[in-house]
Amino acid sequence: MQHYLKDNKAQRDQLTLTHFERKAFSAMLNLADGHVRRQPTPGESKVMSNLQSIYEQSLKIDPVELEARLVKEQLAVCGQVKPNEITPLVFFSGSEALGVVGEALAVDCKTAAVVEPTFDNIPHLIYAAGVEVTPFSEELMAKPRELEGIIRKYHSLVITLPNNPSGISISKATLVEIAKLCASHNTALMIDASFRSYSTNKFDFYAVLTGTKDLDWMVLEDTGKLWAANDLKAGILMCSERFFPKASELFHDLILSISPFVLLLLAELAREAGKEAVKEVIAHIQTNRSIVREGLKNSPIFQPDTTDSQLSVERLYYDEKVYPDQRKLLEHLTSKGLALTGSGGYYWAGTKHKVFVRLALARDKSAVERAVAILAKET
Amino acid sequence: MQHYLKDNKAQRDQLTLTHFERKAFSAMLNLADGHVRRQPTPGESKVMSNLQSIYEQSLKIDPVELEARLVKEQLAVCGQVKPNEITPLVFFSGSEALGVVGEALAVDCKTAAVVEPTFDNIPHLIYAAGVEVTPFSEELMAKPRELEGIIRKYHSLVITLPNNPSGISISKATLVEIAKLCASHNTALMIDASFRSYSTNKFDFYAVLTGTKDLDWMVLEDTGKLWAANDLKAGILMCSERFFPKASELFHDLILSISPFVLLLLAELAREAGKEAVKEVIAHIQTNRSIVREGLKNSPIFQPDTTDSQLSVERLYYDEKVYPDQRKLLEHLTSKGLALTGSGGYYWAGTKHKVFVRLALARDKSAVERAVAILAKET
Repeated sequence: MQHYLKDNKAQRDQLTLTHFERKAFSAMLNLADGHVRRQPTPGESKVMSNLQSIYEQSLKIDPVELEARLVKEQLAVCGQVKPNEITPLVFFSGSEALGVVGEALAVDCKTAAVVEPTFDNIPHLIYAAGVEVTPFSEELMAKPRELEGIIRKYHSLVITLPNNPSGISISKATLVEIAKLCASHNTALMIDASFRSYSTNKFDFYAVLTGTKDLDWMVLEDTGKLWAANDLKAGILMCSERFFPKASELFHDLILSISPFVLLLLAELAREAGKEAVKEVIAHIQTNRSIVREGLKNSPIFQPDTTDSQLSVERLYYDEKVYPDQRKLLEHLTSKGLALTGSGGYYWAGTKHKVFVRLALARDKSAVERAVAILAKET
Repeated sequence: MQHYLKDNKAQRDQLTLTHFERKAFSAMLNLADGHVRRQPTPGESKVMSNLQSIYEQSLKIDPVELEARLVKEQLAVCGQVKPNEITPLVFFSGSEALGVVGEALAVDCKTAAVVEPTFDNIPHLIYAAGVEVTPFSEELMAKPRELEGIIRKYHSLVITLPNNPSGISISKATLVEIAKLCASHNTALMIDASFRSYSTNKFDFYAVLTGTKDLDWMVLEDTGKLWAANDLKAGILMCSERFFPKASELFHDLILSISPFVLLLLAELAREAGKEAVKEVIAHIQTNRSIVREGLKNSPIFQPDTTDSQLSVERLYYDEKVYPDQRKLLEHLTSKGLALTGSGGYYWAGTKHKVFVRLALARDKSAVERAVAILAKET
């Protein structure tokens, strides 16, 4: 039997979602990657038009103090409170932090059950660290009793909340239940909360995690999916005592600190722009989503998603019988000037699924309109 | 027998050079880390006072094109030419690239001979990837015939040119000889050239490496040690065919691209400020070095270095009998307001050596003067 990650090692880089996203840089319309490529909102503009002054200020402040300020402000925007006893580790990106998550798991977790679908670099980086990864369906995240069979079987459980690209999240009560099950089975719980800011149900994860006796946990935060800051961003890793020594060791081998300018800029975005800007961003995304749903409602090829996802991406389903090879469909759309990603990348273990292409919505309205015009012409 | 890396695993993070450098952030005078913390030179100022405009421009250019531009400009400043057939991988930092170097070596190099002294995260990250690391003395870099005994014995040879903190480098003829020996023994050659811009002897490494038949190689470039850009930086990894698949795979799991703003800023620094600015930077460093050597020539405790190192750091030797515990000496200096690093961190395998503390010279002249005043008072 083929192993979903082992057996495509040759040129695996050419098959990753990131590969398709990098190729999309040169497309006329790049709606591939989930990074923020839109004009700043009014709230963001107050900060983003002030870069020189923020740079000059950042030269004068202790970077460790700036890290603390960023973590506090960013968490506040997302309705989170940093637990007193936790030392956050601030990385250049969520992905760099994810590599460290993998290594920290690998110390004594031989296996991880990882949600599917999700962005493929999550299982890739955990697997690269030497942890065996096994997929489980995202629907189980909302069904703790069914999930218990998985929790019992593996050393760690890796979930993405809200999940990418579905936008599925869970209630506080469900997270409490999952956390308790993990603790009782001595299974570590790792949550990638990179898209947290788009969630409509922002309860404090940390209160749940630190409130669960004997739970070993890690949480990854990412500023990069929220602000229109041209990929000036940070990945923030927090973890319980069991994982901290290894994570801190790797942090100290990898980073002195990310640029104090980036730390201050992101702290200012969260403080100045703050929750108001998050509302503006979400409103912008929802406008773009309506453009897609409205513009393609009569498409004979694409069926827009109908769920109430708040995530900054949108799924368009299509008939697998018409396009049996998703790469060919993506190449066809690229030839029309439009770069997207396909569901195959998110179903990282190759599980059969209802196929779709994914549009990034963190773009200017005009870009989404032009993309919809291209897609609407497909017959 | 103790193993230099295995047996201090508990709280190893608290023993790294980076740990001491982070602690130094809060010191009155931080001359610990080798990062650039000085006012920009006139050449740099032209670019660094223009951040808002560079940001706006960076929003409009394909990041892959910006990567290529940065690599070309940065290499040109250092007298290097990118070989046509090589695809550079641009990371957030030299250290992130170094983690990837480790993983790429680990594919089929079980062992690495790593130069000592050098910055400790080089052996740490290679070791963390699963490669056994063994130290060899930096003096052997200039003696290829003696080095052959090492090259024959290990799967890979890891050197830093110029080396940190000694500033030792080698001639083109010597690198040619080392490259040939590595090729003939099927030993991979990895060069960390992070401090390359400070070298007085800037021949083109890539011409030597690609000109050596059957040589497997990797080279790491780092913009972070040169420009006064508050740690806005990039690490550039280039490697031969043997290492590229793994390095590219990890790149694609870790990065879409670093911020286009940072790519353009660094490209502009190299293009606009260019070789003129490098001369200004080196002149600034040499002025600071003179302040140290002159100001401490009568110190009963510290003996300034006397070599003609161009590196942006300076060593101060002292009598081990007077200060048998280096950490206590460093703590004592911190209590006076001055943070430095000690030779123990660079002698990562714990080899006996002539002890010293290291001063970072990429600081404003006034900071170096104040540091010297503190050190001169020690009796």
